Amino acid sequence: VDASRPIGVFDSGVGGLTVLHECLVTLPHEDFVYLGDTGRFPYGQHSLDDLRSFAIEITGWLESQDVKLVVVACNSATAAALPTLQRHFDLPIIGVVTPEAHAAVQATRARRIGVLATVATVESGRYREVIGELDAGVEVTEVACPGLADRIQDGDPYDEAMVAHVREVCAPLRSAAVDTVILGCTHYPLVRPMLQRELGRGVTLVAAAEELAGEVAETLRRKGLGNDDDRRGEYRFACTGDPVAFARTGQRFLQLPLGPVRQLAPSELAAA
Amino acid sequence: VDASRPIGVFDSGVGGLTVLHECLVTLPHEDFVYLGDTGRFPYGQHSLDDLRSFAIEITGWLESQDVKLVVVACNSATAAALPTLQRHFDLPIIGVVTPEAHAAVQATRARRIGVLATVATVESGRYREVIGELDAGVEVTEVACPGLADRIQDGDPYDEAMVAHVREVCAPLRSAAVDTVILGCTHYPLVRPMLQRELGRGVTLVAAAEELAGEVAETLRRKGLGNDDDRRGEYRFACTGDPVAFARTGQRFLQLPLGPVRQLAPSELAAA
Repeated sequence: VDASRPIGVFDSGVGGLTVLHECLVTLPHEDFVYLGDTGRFPYGQHSLDDLRSFAIEITGWLESQDVKLVVVACNSATAAALPTLQRHFDLPIIGVVTPEAHAAVQATRARRIGVLATVATVESGRYREVIGELDAGVEVTEVACPGLADRIQDGDPYDEAMVAHVREVCAPLRSAAVDTVILGCTHYPLVRPMLQRELGRGVTLVAAAEELAGEVAETLRRKGLGNDDDRRGEYRFACTGDPVAFARTGQRFLQLPLGPVRQLAPSELAAA
Repeated sequence: VDASRPIGVFDSGVGGLTVLHECLVTLPHEDFVYLGDTGRFPYGQHSLDDLRSFAIEITGWLESQDVKLVVVACNSATAAALPTLQRHFDLPIIGVVTPEAHAAVQATRARRIGVLATVATVESGRYREVIGELDAGVEVTEVACPGLADRIQDGDPYDEAMVAHVREVCAPLRSAAVDTVILGCTHYPLVRPMLQRELGRGVTLVAAAEELAGEVAETLRRKGLGNDDDRRGEYRFACTGDPVAFARTGQRFLQLPLGPVRQLAPSELAAA
C-alpha cells in the first residue's frame, strides 16, 4: 500500500468539515479529499436503504480518487451504512460514534455521560449501546436537539436565540449532573464555548471531530500508512450541490482556506 | 468587599474580547464590564506617558462602575502601565505576560519556548525577562509579527494570505525546535488552528486569554471574591470609538452574543 495516497472524508454536507478541520490540524503532512453530498442533503429525509446506496457510491468514488482510508464524518451515514461499507470495501473505514464514546468513557469520573445529538441519532440508540459495551455501569442521558444543527448552519451562531437554544438542551444534562458530554453531531463544535459556559468548566466536552482525527492518526500509525512527516499536505473539495454555497457555508466550519470546490454530478458518483 | 460586584476588563480595542471570551466560559456566574478604548486605538502610536494616563483614566472609570477586580487585557497597556496602576489603585489588577509566561515554563519539556507578539511587545523584552525569572535555563525565541494583528482584525482570517503570514512567523520557531509557543497578543487565538497545523500537535500553544482567565478565577477564589456559583452572570460593553464598528468587529473575537455597546466620551472617562 502506498502511504503517500490521500485520505477520503465524506458527509451529507458541510458538518463533516469540523472533522476535516481537526484532521488538518492533527495531520498537516497528509493529503485529503472531501466530498459533501449537498445535492442530497439532509440525509435524515432519506430511507436507510438509500443512505446505504449513497455511502457505497461515495466510497466508490473516493476509491477512484485513490484514497488509502475513508472517514465517514456523518452520524446518519455512520448509523445507516458503516458495517455495509466495511464489508463492501477493502479500505480501512472509520466512522463517528465509537471514537467519542470511547473518549467519554475514559473521561467520566462520576460515570454519568450526556449526549447531545440529532433526533435520528438519539433514536438510533447507538451512543447508548456503544457506551454500554465499554462500561455497562455508566448512566447515559441523551438529549435530542431538533433544529440545533440547522440553526448553527443557517443562523447567526452567536445570537441570543442560540444561547437560549443551548440553555434549553443543556438543562436535562445539568439536572442529571453529568460530568462528560458528547457533542454527537459534527455541527456542534461551532457553539462549543456557549455549551461550556452553560455546563461549566468542570464538564468535559468530547467532540466527534477531535476524537475521529485522533482515531485516524492512530490507525495510520498502526497500519504503517502515514505519509512523510516533513511534507506539507494538500486538500481538495467536491460536492454534489451548489459549489458556491458549499464554499460560503463551509468556510465557518473549516476555519482554514477552502479553495475551489469541484461540482460532481450524481452520474459521476454512480459511474465511479 | 462585596463579592457580587462585576469584574472590569479593558483593552485598546477588540483584541481583549478573546480574554473576556475565556473569562465568560470559565466564570459563567460572574458579571463583567468591558471597555474598549477604540477612540485612541492603536495604543502603539502613543507615548508610554500617554498610555499610563489612559490606563489610569480607564481604571478610574471602571472603579466608578464598582468593579471588584480589573483585568488589563492588552499587551501595550500592561507593558506601559501595570505597575503604575497597581500602585495607584486599591483594587486587584491583573495583566498579561506573567500568566502565560508561567504556563509556558510549566509546559515546556525541552526548555525551549517561542513567543509570537507585536513589535512593541518584543521590543519591551518583558516575556524574555519574566520567563528568565521563572527558569533561567529556558531558551526563548521571540518573533515579532508586524501586521499580523491588523490582518486578523481587518482581513479574512481564513485565506491563503493568512496561511502564508502564519507560515512565515512560525519558520524561526520551527528552526529553534521550540516545544511551547506563547501567543503573546490577544488577537492571535483567532488563527490558533492555523498555527497548530503549522507547528504540529507536539507543540503546546499557550494563549494569554486562557491563562488570564485562569488567573482571574484563582485570584477570586484565594481572595474570597467569587460570586455565587449558581447564578447566571451578565456582561456589558462600552467603547470610546464607534460602537457599531466595535460590535461588528468584536463579534468574531467574543464568539458569544455581544449586545448593545455604550459609547463613552473621553470627557466621561476623565471625569470618573
